[in-house]
Amino acid sequence: MLQFDVTHALPFLPKNWLSSRLDGLTDARNLLERGNGLGGEFTGWVNLPAQFDQREMQRLLHTARIIQSQSEVLVVIGIGGSYLGARAMLELLTSPNYNLLCKKTPQIFFTGNTLSPDAMTELLDYVREKDFSVNVVSKSGNTTEPSVAFLLFRQLLEEKYGREGARDRIFATTDRKEGSLRALANQEGYATFSIPRSIGGRYSALTAAGLLPLAVAGLDIREMLSGAAEAMTALRQPGQDNPAWQYAAARNALYAQGKNIELLACYEPHLRSFGEWWKQLFGESEGKDGQGVFPASVEFTTDLHSMGQYIQEGTRDLFETVVRFTYPLSSCLLDPEPGDGSGLDYLRGKDLRYVNEQARRGTVLAHVAGGVPNLLLTAGERTPFWAGQLVYFFEYACGLSGYLSGLNPFNQPGVEAYKTNMFALLGKPGHEGQRQALADQGLL
Amino acid sequence: MLQFDVTHALPFLPKNWLSSRLDGLTDARNLLERGNGLGGEFTGWVNLPAQFDQREMQRLLHTARIIQSQSEVLVVIGIGGSYLGARAMLELLTSPNYNLLCKKTPQIFFTGNTLSPDAMTELLDYVREKDFSVNVVSKSGNTTEPSVAFLLFRQLLEEKYGREGARDRIFATTDRKEGSLRALANQEGYATFSIPRSIGGRYSALTAAGLLPLAVAGLDIREMLSGAAEAMTALRQPGQDNPAWQYAAARNALYAQGKNIELLACYEPHLRSFGEWWKQLFGESEGKDGQGVFPASVEFTTDLHSMGQYIQEGTRDLFETVVRFTYPLSSCLLDPEPGDGSGLDYLRGKDLRYVNEQARRGTVLAHVAGGVPNLLLTAGERTPFWAGQLVYFFEYACGLSGYLSGLNPFNQPGVEAYKTNMFALLGKPGHEGQRQALADQGLL
Repeated sequence: MLQFDVTHALPFLPKNWLSSRLDGLTDARNLLERGNGLGGEFTGWVNLPAQFDQREMQRLLHTARIIQSQSEVLVVIGIGGSYLGARAMLELLTSPNYNLLCKKTPQIFFTGNTLSPDAMTELLDYVREKDFSVNVVSKSGNTTEPSVAFLLFRQLLEEKYGREGARDRIFATTDRKEGSLRALANQEGYATFSIPRSIGGRYSALTAAGLLPLAVAGLDIREMLSGAAEAMTALRQPGQDNPAWQYAAARNALYAQGKNIELLACYEPHLRSFGEWWKQLFGESEGKDGQGVFPASVEFTTDLHSMGQYIQEGTRDLFETVVRFTYPLSSCLLDPEPGDGSGLDYLRGKDLRYVNEQARRGTVLAHVAGGVPNLLLTAGERTPFWAGQLVYFFEYACGLSGYLSGLNPFNQPGVEAYKTNMFALLGKPGHEGQRQALADQGLL
Repeated sequence: MLQFDVTHALPFLPKNWLSSRLDGLTDARNLLERGNGLGGEFTGWVNLPAQFDQREMQRLLHTARIIQSQSEVLVVIGIGGSYLGARAMLELLTSPNYNLLCKKTPQIFFTGNTLSPDAMTELLDYVREKDFSVNVVSKSGNTTEPSVAFLLFRQLLEEKYGREGARDRIFATTDRKEGSLRALANQEGYATFSIPRSIGGRYSALTAAGLLPLAVAGLDIREMLSGAAEAMTALRQPGQDNPAWQYAAARNALYAQGKNIELLACYEPHLRSFGEWWKQLFGESEGKDGQGVFPASVEFTTDLHSMGQYIQEGTRDLFETVVRFTYPLSSCLLDPEPGDGSGLDYLRGKDLRYVNEQARRGTVLAHVAGGVPNLLLTAGERTPFWAGQLVYFFEYACGLSGYLSGLNPFNQPGVEAYKTNMFALLGKPGHEGQRQALADQGLL
């Protein structure tokens, strides 16, 4: 099981940082268990790792093999929670360079998350000469960005393979019954997977939304669910030793003391996209009512040479949470020759994993001395099992943390604001009132 | 010339936001001109675009052709300012997918910026079977991360090509005279380019540090310098219409009102790494003495579905600065067929560039209504000329901004703290005192 270490934040915390929050955490835990808190209708993820439909799992694995056999490229279309979990896990468990390195499995591109004509054209041109399949991920089917991308890639599929052929290359992950994508899939006969209605986008990494692309990449998604299940069993046990309780309490206490910014830090480039997933999870769950810790992410030691100065000596409203793996997968021995000019004689015979770990330890000492509390989450290895644990840990801690703050961790009312204006500007039917309001202000 | 628009921040600014800062800006401008402010010995970048040595330029272009002809891969070794400018410009002007798309020019990988054994092993394995060259970028030659990577890639080059052959594939960008990398390059006879002593890492994007990799990618680096020169001429003119003065004054005024976090936002995925470059530039220049705006970056509309909720309704200490191009390079016409189920009938005949622009406009309205001041910087096209303008604009504005805040925008004293501890933990000679101190605390 994951280890959580609060030692290097204690100098910044009051003695009762945890004890004073045990009642609140107990309440939060019970709200998650019973699904009767704010947004309780979206707590289907809590029990998901134990309840995953085994026939759905078999269909996922079977479909992944079909996609592998017929595709050089899989285009995943989705925005927000519909792609961030899959991309985070893909890069964590393979590499940020997966598309350059994959040999036996299809390349995977994430789109439907931008309106940039340059980015869209680039990918359309890239797959035009390749055999490709599409996994469109949208709970409602109404979101503009994935709808636009699906329109374009579906048209390209139909050009290449005809309408019948295209049908065999489109895989829709959507609501079981409702929404425009479900209707279209039923009409066209696409293979489909469902996102349970009780699971919101940012909590959907362990549903088909996250798992199908990962299975196509050849990753063991059953192991991922096993890891998540182990975390689930451990984290649902109430008590002050619970690492999710400790994390939720510590960040709540740090925020109460004016630590407004949390940096998710890692020492592996593989975790960079994980930071983006984590930022949505916490930012969207807690950034409301004019409150919330601002989530940012850094990759060390890389960013110690860009953000390091600010972290060490800038405005003192930061704390950092490090995600660390005990065992890197590779060994990389340093063997400088005497007089080779490298200046690294003192590292002779050392493995880079040792150097990286001393960099982490040295950084903790430096940042704590500089006034930055440090929380540490340690996983075993960079494998699907541990990745599943990490996902569940942060989901569960986020749910606890939201309820501990007295808010609804499962809604995102603010996401509509830009859409409303955009639709009005674009003249979308149903937005005539807002369009008139903009016209009256001379904004059309 | 770049256009700067403060309109959507004015509701949050006092009337005298600019006029009250004109004296300070005049002083800041004069300190930059005369090089007699704090850190004035590092203002060599101010006049660089007009002074770029034309023989050095010819050597850069010539060397780029050599690297192109002998390499499938160029490995760029550098950390912080030694790689962020080159990577930002490469992705901005080609694509984040450059390494997948490049056909006539070498793939380019950036390393020497991590101690991860997994990342290092991955790249070593990747280039082992390829013809590759190395551009090692380090002003001093003493920084641990690039030294480690250079050791490993140099050993691999010598294995593949012999010691003589390796020499023809190593290109060092370093100080003109001093430092261990300069000494080694002289001893081994590597081709070298210099980083002027008067230019610090984060201001070095327009030196050989940034330009050589870009020339290898086939980009017109002379155009980039032309753009920078145009910006230089415009921005060194004092006055309240100067866009760099306006940007420096606006962010200074917003910070004074408690806007602690600046989001650099864009609507093109190509700008994501540009955000990382910008974060170093401002974070390292201003994050000191317990002060400074925290720099973060977002890519829209992508991140409106992850960070959008927080930006719209979270803690109200944000402002955002959008970098926009008037003309995207591609056209992407939307042509939904009636009844195709896309729900996009209202976009028929529209180009995606129009949709993306309405998304930007709608987002500004939403964020301003939500309490987030919006600054807008508009460039013409995503070309080397305009990229050079952008780089110079932000460098110059950062210098102004630092002096306006009364600090030294050119040092980074806090970057040493983690290194000191790391060296002590690793037993590097010269760090025995700190090592003993750690031992006394039981930290070894």
